Amino acid sequence: MRYAGTHLIIDLWGATNLDDPGHIDAVLREAAIATGATILHGHFHHFSPNGGVSGVLVLAESHVSIHTWPERDYAALDIFVCGDCDPYKAIPFLKRGFLAERVQLAEHKRGLIG
Amino acid sequence: MRYAGTHLIIDLWGATNLDDPGHIDAVLREAAIATGATILHGHFHHFSPNGGVSGVLVLAESHVSIHTWPERDYAALDIFVCGDCDPYKAIPFLKRGFLAERVQLAEHKRGLIG
Repeated sequence: MRYAGTHLIIDLWGATNLDDPGHIDAVLREAAIATGATILHGHFHHFSPNGGVSGVLVLAESHVSIHTWPERDYAALDIFVCGDCDPYKAIPFLKRGFLAERVQLAEHKRGLIG
Repeated sequence: MRYAGTHLIIDLWGATNLDDPGHIDAVLREAAIATGATILHGHFHHFSPNGGVSGVLVLAESHVSIHTWPERDYAALDIFVCGDCDPYKAIPFLKRGFLAERVQLAEHKRGLIG
């Protein structure tokens, strides 16, 4: 099976520190590096009044994104990496960084060419 | 059914202009605006030697991303929007902007709380 990359859609429930852009930036960078990726660019936005954060890391091997709803202890992430990177290696770092009670995950093989 | 947002995973096959960061930026901005979203930040990276482009738009309502493989006429996108935004409104702009022969699509309701 040949494909361009693996894209994980990740939901974190019962999570903490979802309103701290600095913490979120640090956790995502650590998680991205754990997959084997190279970080090219990051941008994190802090919203008012709910304190939610939206952010992205552009990687040499695609991207990581996060959007948080602190009022619901919920965060929506996706991790898309290519080549030899393994997106599943990010999961322990996300669990530890956000102390999520529950993680839901879906995987897409992107650019599948048989 | 209550959820945080709608996340489309979009594959474009037989697409053109996948090695032009300026064009890609313009198409994605137009597509994002069509969903009803507000653009906060954009970043596009042009790779060598294959000429592929990786880019993201951070929206007030989440994000749009693209990663292109010009050598395969293939692009992997995702569009995640919340609130009253409709990600499906982006599709005609992507079709027109990249003249894709084939579009594949998967939808995730993110943060579904029943």
